[in-house]
Amino acid sequence: MEIPQIIETIEADLQSIGYKSEPKNLYEPIDYSLQKGGKRMRPFLVAITYLMYKDQINDVLPLCRSIEVFHNFTLLHDDIMDKAPLRRGEPTVYKKWNENIAILSGDVMLVQAYQYLLDLKPEKLHKLMQVFNEGAIKVCEGQQMDMNFEEESSVKVEEYIEMIYLKTAALLDHAMEMAALYAEASSEDIEKIKSFARNIGIAFQLKDDLLDAFGDAAKFGKQVGGDIIANKKTFLLLKAMELSNPEQKKQLDYWLSVSDQAEEKVKEVIHIFNEIGIPKLTEELIKKYFNEGMDSLRSISSNKPEKEKLANYVELLMQREK
Amino acid sequence: MEIPQIIETIEADLQSIGYKSEPKNLYEPIDYSLQKGGKRMRPFLVAITYLMYKDQINDVLPLCRSIEVFHNFTLLHDDIMDKAPLRRGEPTVYKKWNENIAILSGDVMLVQAYQYLLDLKPEKLHKLMQVFNEGAIKVCEGQQMDMNFEEESSVKVEEYIEMIYLKTAALLDHAMEMAALYAEASSEDIEKIKSFARNIGIAFQLKDDLLDAFGDAAKFGKQVGGDIIANKKTFLLLKAMELSNPEQKKQLDYWLSVSDQAEEKVKEVIHIFNEIGIPKLTEELIKKYFNEGMDSLRSISSNKPEKEKLANYVELLMQREK
Repeated sequence: MEIPQIIETIEADLQSIGYKSEPKNLYEPIDYSLQKGGKRMRPFLVAITYLMYKDQINDVLPLCRSIEVFHNFTLLHDDIMDKAPLRRGEPTVYKKWNENIAILSGDVMLVQAYQYLLDLKPEKLHKLMQVFNEGAIKVCEGQQMDMNFEEESSVKVEEYIEMIYLKTAALLDHAMEMAALYAEASSEDIEKIKSFARNIGIAFQLKDDLLDAFGDAAKFGKQVGGDIIANKKTFLLLKAMELSNPEQKKQLDYWLSVSDQAEEKVKEVIHIFNEIGIPKLTEELIKKYFNEGMDSLRSISSNKPEKEKLANYVELLMQREK
Repeated sequence: MEIPQIIETIEADLQSIGYKSEPKNLYEPIDYSLQKGGKRMRPFLVAITYLMYKDQINDVLPLCRSIEVFHNFTLLHDDIMDKAPLRRGEPTVYKKWNENIAILSGDVMLVQAYQYLLDLKPEKLHKLMQVFNEGAIKVCEGQQMDMNFEEESSVKVEEYIEMIYLKTAALLDHAMEMAALYAEASSEDIEKIKSFARNIGIAFQLKDDLLDAFGDAAKFGKQVGGDIIANKKTFLLLKAMELSNPEQKKQLDYWLSVSDQAEEKVKEVIHIFNEIGIPKLTEELIKKYFNEGMDSLRSISSNKPEKEKLANYVELLMQREK
């Protein structure tokens, strides 16, 4: 099955979810959140994992739904916690409605994510739920670590990598494990798929961090340096703190204490990042995770063309410049 | 098994839950919320339902855990939404920590409620989860309706009863259904148990409403009239609005518009309630639901002494005066 066709099938399935109409302000935000789109990366990864072993995409669609609804549940709650006004260019649920509604609609979505698992083969349910729960807990732990880092003065690079694994990569890891289990892949293949998901997930997040500071702003009409303005402890900043000489350290500390002069702050911090060679170091680390992930993917036993298509898909995603 | 022994067994099981220690501010609030106690009414009802058919309480403890953890998840999130500073005389999680932590710890608890279901017999999981999910969705819908009622000027008594069914009684209904299913009760008995739970749950909530205005404040050191001060659209107020003559209606409307003079407000509204005969009407409605629930209970086929113990337990709960 071709990639666009897979994504269309997933999209059509998500669009077909019929929500109850009452209470309106409980179900409208769910509909709004799910129909807004996005890349559908997570359900796509679920589907293609399954298609590396089996032929019928329809059999795995409930799992795709479950993972996408779970992911959107985390967005509803995270956007409250991160006070994020916009998502995919539209007001977030808590901004468009209010916090209480975003909490409660999110809760319903989490229950629904479990509900969709019931549309899979019942004899697989116990094992799938075990993996799902482990992943769900990791995502919450990652979000808590991320919030804690804002208050902590010394965060280590390894702690940051652990946090982005939990917050971002763990859902890919566990979702793809579920798909592989459901497709009855061998336990060796499942380990390799998990390793792929883990490494690619971390590489994606590091790439996001890099693009936030060094992306082509003019080309994509995005503000550059949002993380820098917010003093976000990304890999870039943590590594720069670690490698800076006393003068650079002093300057970084100064700019971290500045909360106005956003444009100047971004320019100066990027200047220091460049002096220290942060872009190259980040690129190298991304490459390391990416290559490790791709090696894991190549070593799995599936001979179906979907394996190569998955490789191409992540290659393309890694080349994005926004 | 005697009632105190059942409750002790449940309590010991809840106390034995060992949470991970990191991130500390994710797991401490869960521990705080669960160890604070409470009547443990929901897990007790689960256990005794099971014991009406089977002998081994240990077999049903994971379901007791799941329901109690789910209930505490709803408290964490509801307390944010209702801005409740205290619960069982202690600061609520969002007050003791903060809103973000209460959201996220609550999310983890919801996942854990599902996790405990995995400790039950796997062949029962699919059906149990179906019932659990339906109940969980109802609880969220009830909370949303309750919040919506605050903004609505005309709420009907039937809508209020529907709301308290969803918000309060539905969890008893679905939890007891799960226990009865797990104990392999007949489908006739399950329907009767559900009817018992539904009716008793509504009776409990109406009793709460009544005690809030007419409870013995001096005796229990509680503030009387919290609902009146907050203009809460309880059965008492809705029924009073429905039955008031023009003069009483004018006075009620006046006091609803008053936000200072709390003591005077409570006194005057209670005076109008008494004029209209609200306490008696409420008592009668409580009795109606209570009797219907008890009739359902008496008609189930179990011959074990636990049936009578359950009847005594709810009878005692209904006689409480705080």
